[in-house]
This record gives sequence, C-alpha cells and structure tokens, in this order.
Amino acid sequence: MSVFADEALSDDKFLMGRLRLLQPVRGYRAATDPVLLAAACPAVAGQRVLDLGCGAGAAALCLAARVPGVVLAGLEVQPEYADLARRNAARNAVAMEVVEGDLAAMPRVLRRGFDHVIANPPYYAAGGSPSPVAARDRALRVGTPISDWVAAAAQRLEPGGLLTMIFATPCLPEALAALAPKMGSAEVLPLEPRAGRAPPRVILRARKGGRAAFRLLAPFTLHAGAAHGGDREDYTAAANAVLRNGEDLSAAFR
Amino acid sequence: MSVFADEALSDDKFLMGRLRLLQPVRGYRAATDPVLLAAACPAVAGQRVLDLGCGAGAAALCLAARVPGVVLAGLEVQPEYADLARRNAARNAVAMEVVEGDLAAMPRVLRRGFDHVIANPPYYAAGGSPSPVAARDRALRVGTPISDWVAAAAQRLEPGGLLTMIFATPCLPEALAALAPKMGSAEVLPLEPRAGRAPPRVILRARKGGRAAFRLLAPFTLHAGAAHGGDREDYTAAANAVLRNGEDLSAAFR
Repeated sequence: MSVFADEALSDDKFLMGRLRLLQPVRGYRAATDPVLLAAACPAVAGQRVLDLGCGAGAAALCLAARVPGVVLAGLEVQPEYADLARRNAARNAVAMEVVEGDLAAMPRVLRRGFDHVIANPPYYAAGGSPSPVAARDRALRVGTPISDWVAAAAQRLEPGGLLTMIFATPCLPEALAALAPKMGSAEVLPLEPRAGRAPPRVILRARKGGRAAFRLLAPFTLHAGAAHGGDREDYTAAANAVLRNGEDLSAAFR
Repeated sequence: MSVFADEALSDDKFLMGRLRLLQPVRGYRAATDPVLLAAACPAVAGQRVLDLGCGAGAAALCLAARVPGVVLAGLEVQPEYADLARRNAARNAVAMEVVEGDLAAMPRVLRRGFDHVIANPPYYAAGGSPSPVAARDRALRVGTPISDWVAAAAQRLEPGGLLTMIFATPCLPEALAALAPKMGSAEVLPLEPRAGRAPPRVILRARKGGRAAFRLLAPFTLHAGAAHGGDREDYTAAANAVLRNGEDLSAAFR
C-alpha cells in the first residue's frame, strides 16, 4: 500500500475545528470546494452516501459532521489518498468504507444502490501549469471525462437518488449533456467569488429518474466587498454559515 | 395575405420613442426580451443579421436603432406578423427583408451566410394556461424544439458568425446540447428579475466554429429593490441604459 510519510502531512482544521483532516503538505489539499459540496447534499440520517473520488475524505467527513447517522462510502483511485481517507475517518470517529479503485471499473463492493452520490472531480485550474508533484498533478488533471463521473453516479444511485457535484464552470455543458436519459431535475448553483463576478465553479444537483424542469439558481456569493482583503477573511455571512459553522446550502437551492 | 385589422393594433414606443412598433392589441406583444436580445448582439455596420422568428420585428429594429448600417433579414412563420414586421420596418425607415416561412424549411432567399443570427424563440410561460388567441398561442407555444432553432442558426451563419438567443432557462440544457459540433465558445448571461432571484430567462451566445471554454456570466439584474414597486418603473441603472437608452450589453459579457 502506498502511503504518505507522516512528515509530508499537515493536520488541518475544517468547520472551526469540528473536523480535522490529515492532508499532504504538497499535493491536492482540500479547501472550500468539498465543504460547499457537503453543504449542498441534503442527505438525512440513515441514508447511504457515496463520495466518488473522495480524496482524503473532506467532503464525506464534512457531511458526517453535519448529518450524524449517514452511511458513508468513498471511492478513491490513488492508494495514498484512500489511506488518508481511512485515517481521517477514524481520527474523526466516523464510520466510512473507503474502497480503492477507478470509477470506470467500479469495485464490486460499491455496486449497490445509494441515496446520494457526491463528487468533486479533479480538474486543471484554468491557466495553471502542471504541478511537479505527481499525486497533486493527477488529482487536478482531467483524466476521466466529467461525463464518465455522471454516468458512474447514475449507475450507483437508487431511483429517486440525488447526485451532487462541484466542478469548474467550463465543464457544465458536458455534465448536463451526460445526465439524460437516466438523470433529470437538474439544478445549477453558480458559486461567485464576489457579487457580480462570473462564477468559476458551479454545484450541479440532479435526480435519478427526475423529470422536473432545469433550474439555474441565483449565484451563491463567497466573499464580501469588491476586492480581496489580503489575509483577512472576508466571507459573506452566508458563506461563513457554511464554511465555518457547517450549515447546509438548502436556502440557496430554494 | 393574412393581416391584422388596424383597430386590432396598438402603436407602441420602444427605446424612449426612438422606435415605434405596431403590435396586435391581443396576441404576442414584445416587451423587454427583444430589446435585451438586440442589446446582446455585437453586430457592426455592414454585417448581415438574420432574425429567426422575427415576429413584428422588435429585436431586429432595436438592433438597427443602435447600429445603423446593419443589413437585416427576418424569417417569420405567421403571415400576419411578417406583414407587421414589414410595416414596422418601413415606418421606422429601416431596410429589412422579411421572409414568410418556417425554419424547418428555410426559404431559398435566406440560404446565404450571415454574420449574426438572433432569435427569441416562442415558449410557454411556466404555469401559464394556453391563450384563447390563436396567434398569441402559437407565438408562445414551443412548437419547434429549441434544438431546431440552434441547428437552423448554425446552418445560416458564416464561419466565425455569432448566434445570440434569449429563451426560458429550462431550455438551456437542450440549447447547449444542440450547439455541438458546429457551434462553440458558448456564453450564458442569466437575466434575474431582482438581485438574488433565480433567472427565469437567459441569453445564450455561441460562435460557429468556436472552441473557447464555456462561460457562465454574472447575472444581469433587471429591477432594483426587493419587491415590485407597483406601476412605478424600478429598473436598475444598467437595465435602464439598455431598455430606455438603447445601449448594448457588452459590459455584461466582458
């Protein structure tokens, strides 16, 4: 099994310390995306949730922090991240089944129906240069087309089950096109860095067997004010409620 | 030729009276949509512009009011609206070739390349009941799938030409899916009635042969304040610039 050396890890606080995650110092590090993803998933206690490409477990464990009693599973292709996810689940006293494998060849143990699938697919940041760190590079590269993520999620969901994804806005047309015919009732929440700025990321929710009209929602604004206030945190009140207090995004989807 | 009786028409001011349009008192009446559509089309003098489903000519004539020298053509399936468009063009001293016909069987005279295609396809307002007025009913019904509008536009555009459409948000996934493989570089401008409200309509722009990443823009806000101020006009300054002063929407697409 491939694992990170202890000195290559940092121990990071999420949700004002309610959650602590070991993450590689160099490599893919969870920031706000998995926290927003977890906040957009309306799972309730007892429901089964699959985190496709769970990384070090940030999204799944944020969800568990808000909704005790969800039944968590994670799929992760990189063994060192799968190992971290298992350690992070144990350190936060959360039961989570982490399976090493590729979504293009879903491990048999995950071939059951889920009430929710959540996913934060890897992507290249626009204009970014390839990272010298192989694991980070892989985590950020679009290796698997987003249509494959949608297809894998659709297969794992029970009828009526909900997919919740966060990804870069340029992927939206491909993700929407991949929904039919199994998934519908799509809703898109744009995430704008500041009021009036184009949203570089969106959250997409879609329901297996859903037939409701497509909805584009008002953007969720992350930062207050017109410019970045240096190191000072300047989240909007709504963003603070999600990113620090661990509240959900249900108001944004209303 | 089917025409409206004079007593069935009203003479309406657009762009603070710079444009006057005869419109049926009962039936489809242009409001803000064609004005916004015209404002989103970056045509310049000398370019050829086709208005697919031109109705009484509102969008094309708004464009001519902002950009003298555009070469206008319109396609309209309903003879009484085609007649109105011709009369409206003449009354506003604009040269516009209006052809009666269906976009599924494009008249030969329009089978040339255009620099721009603009379209405000008919739709049923969500929750609306069918109108008792046949012409209005037809103008508002989704008779032709939006994918056919996109395909017809793609066929009529020169390489590098731009499609600009305004339509109901639920049609967005179908419109985006219809772009490939001929059209790309899609940009979506959500039109929100007030800040923080979900946008019921969007403007889509896409370029023939375009290969740039999909862009979702910050919403364009039509009304100021939190609630409708009765009969009082409460457009935002940016909306006033477009709807009353006839300015373009280039800042919103930046």
